[in-house]
Amino acid sequence: MTKPLKVAVAGLGTVGAGLIALLRQQSDLIAERAGRAITVTAVSAKDRTKDRGLDLSGLHWFDDAATMAAEADVDVVVEVIGGSSGIARATAEAAIAKGCHLVTANKALLAVSGAELARAAEAKGVTLAFEAAVAGGIPIVKAVREGLAGNRFSQVTGILNGTCNYILTTMRESGREFAEVLGEAQALGYAEADPSFDIDGIDAAHKLCILTSLAFGTAVDFGQMHIEGIRHISALDIKFAEELGYRIKLLGIARRTEAGIEQRVHPCMVPIHSMIGRVDGVFNAVVAEGDFVGKTLFEGRGAGAGPTASAVAADLIDIAAGCHRPAFGIKADRLAPLKAAPMADHKGAYYIRLMVLDRPGVFADIAAALRDSDVSMEAVIQRGRAPGETVPVVMTVHNTKESSMHCALERIAKLEAVVETPRLIRIENE
Amino acid sequence: MTKPLKVAVAGLGTVGAGLIALLRQQSDLIAERAGRAITVTAVSAKDRTKDRGLDLSGLHWFDDAATMAAEADVDVVVEVIGGSSGIARATAEAAIAKGCHLVTANKALLAVSGAELARAAEAKGVTLAFEAAVAGGIPIVKAVREGLAGNRFSQVTGILNGTCNYILTTMRESGREFAEVLGEAQALGYAEADPSFDIDGIDAAHKLCILTSLAFGTAVDFGQMHIEGIRHISALDIKFAEELGYRIKLLGIARRTEAGIEQRVHPCMVPIHSMIGRVDGVFNAVVAEGDFVGKTLFEGRGAGAGPTASAVAADLIDIAAGCHRPAFGIKADRLAPLKAAPMADHKGAYYIRLMVLDRPGVFADIAAALRDSDVSMEAVIQRGRAPGETVPVVMTVHNTKESSMHCALERIAKLEAVVETPRLIRIENE
Repeated sequence: MTKPLKVAVAGLGTVGAGLIALLRQQSDLIAERAGRAITVTAVSAKDRTKDRGLDLSGLHWFDDAATMAAEADVDVVVEVIGGSSGIARATAEAAIAKGCHLVTANKALLAVSGAELARAAEAKGVTLAFEAAVAGGIPIVKAVREGLAGNRFSQVTGILNGTCNYILTTMRESGREFAEVLGEAQALGYAEADPSFDIDGIDAAHKLCILTSLAFGTAVDFGQMHIEGIRHISALDIKFAEELGYRIKLLGIARRTEAGIEQRVHPCMVPIHSMIGRVDGVFNAVVAEGDFVGKTLFEGRGAGAGPTASAVAADLIDIAAGCHRPAFGIKADRLAPLKAAPMADHKGAYYIRLMVLDRPGVFADIAAALRDSDVSMEAVIQRGRAPGETVPVVMTVHNTKESSMHCALERIAKLEAVVETPRLIRIENE
Repeated sequence: MTKPLKVAVAGLGTVGAGLIALLRQQSDLIAERAGRAITVTAVSAKDRTKDRGLDLSGLHWFDDAATMAAEADVDVVVEVIGGSSGIARATAEAAIAKGCHLVTANKALLAVSGAELARAAEAKGVTLAFEAAVAGGIPIVKAVREGLAGNRFSQVTGILNGTCNYILTTMRESGREFAEVLGEAQALGYAEADPSFDIDGIDAAHKLCILTSLAFGTAVDFGQMHIEGIRHISALDIKFAEELGYRIKLLGIARRTEAGIEQRVHPCMVPIHSMIGRVDGVFNAVVAEGDFVGKTLFEGRGAGAGPTASAVAADLIDIAAGCHRPAFGIKADRLAPLKAAPMADHKGAYYIRLMVLDRPGVFADIAAALRDSDVSMEAVIQRGRAPGETVPVVMTVHNTKESSMHCALERIAKLEAVVETPRLIRIENE
């Protein structure tokens, strides 16, 4: 066997500590699979005194991760600090500048600066790897970049945030409202104290941004992304979805269209029995559609110490085995600028829920607004007639332009009998 | 870019022709991803005059694949002839002997001679790759060997034969019997004229054999495999399964136990909402369970020109990109002999269906037989009482040793009131 691969770990939170535990516990197995040992020799974190349940003796300690990246005698720096700027970014840049391979789980950093880091890594002849940055333990980066590399992708669709999927699944199973279920998820540790990063779709968008680049050979472009979260999803919408044969999921979708590439994160209704509609709880999943392979689904745990450490370990084993691939699948200087398809031009199916006063003539006004905006209804559900009171009216429409839909909804929202902001959820039928 | 990777294709059936079509259609894309062009320069098939819808002009034609492997000026030989011996094997051996990389979709050859071929390839310093041999387009070989390489696997479970899954799904959806649905599948081209290879579990067993080696670092050992097919599954069993909350799937299961490694292919009842229970139709799926990553599911098309060509292309791109991994994940001389757990010692849950004459005392005899063999019943269903006539009696038992179960069934089969061979289907609750 050749000499061990020496690794510095920047960040000793859940993921960093999990990685060190994995590399120790599986050292024999990994040495067999990688063809050489993988050894952590240096670590860095803010607080040296904190008990992490790990024996750190014998490891070179650095208080500052960027200093470690610049000075430690290692082959690879693993950055598991997080954040798109600050110390995480400085560490990544220092590692590459020194000629170290960089393995990172940092989706925010990659979504913002991935193309730049990939260019820097290539210029230095080092590898930039980030299996852990997308969908945790699911080896989806490798699947899109290598396993399905013979395909031209038409679409990549993902449930990329376990917190949102847990909340939506629990809302459906319990019939409870968003705020209550979020509170419970926070108590159980499935959601952060400040949950906005997850529930507003930012985390999923970071991951989708990376998948888009991998699938379509475009430079990451986080600015050109349509993002909506799940705060406005109500128990009522989930109930109606079920009735219509759908599940509500927060999806990240990157799709090649004639107008360019759609890159969007928002709640979707998907058929109950579709590949992605069946993925529940904290699980993540990605459906990749290639022209030769068809649809393939990858499902697993998207977060947590074990799954994330598994993904980082896979990158380290690749590096130890001498398998170096361009970070985003093709050479960084060949990554094309993303030509984004405007969201206003998106065409698809929609679910609309209105809360209206149940009185004569209301529906005629709604129908007129739709007609005048070129929107054709597919189906209408109205339950629980209660003259003079507020009732939900649910409609589905298909093959409609997003801009027409918004135009119609603006007009509908102004109707006197419509008492709440109309709710719109896009439908993805496959 | 460096010079093109030159490829010889042995076999121009569906897969070989599909591969050539893929490599031509995606040539630019592949050159970007692989860092160099991949070019087919030689082909071989039995009949040169056959119209395959492909322009073969400019390619070096060989009537004999083994001669091509020995003589063609190529870097890689792709063997898509099939069969564990004969010309396929001779071609594989000739390619390796000449120092060519070998890419094969030949599960039968690998299940029988995989370890030997891997040793030969290593001795020659060439790559043996076979993504297409397991689960078609699903990049499961790469996932187990690389993407999840940081994990110790406890179990790998697969729906590995699309024909069987199609038949079982259709039987469930239509309520029809096996023979009728098989005939329809044959008419539709989903099953071969001689379907035994698929429906008797041999094809799934070949694939499982390869997965076992990859997951557990053992040499392929096709001899030590328990194999049952789906011929005896009846519409009645499928109906009872549904009632009990299960789906019947033909599974391949490789599991690490204290007694060794279980390696078995047989029909199973799996919970309707389990990862694998939801996989229907011609789709294949594999659930890999690792100690850090937990359960991961990979689902997609397991056969057909496109998916298979996609998998072969991925192997070629790996080779073109200079990524060479040991065929079965670790060096061939480190693959351990498989210590097989005897099937008689298997412990699990079971479904049993008896056809009995509905008369007093029968159930007492059955219960006594179970008790005397140390089998404890979990539940019993008896429907449609019809004194003096034959009725089905269904029982489930859990945590029972396979040998005890068979002992009880032998005794039960001899009871005068039991009029058909008792049916046993194993239950996999997770």
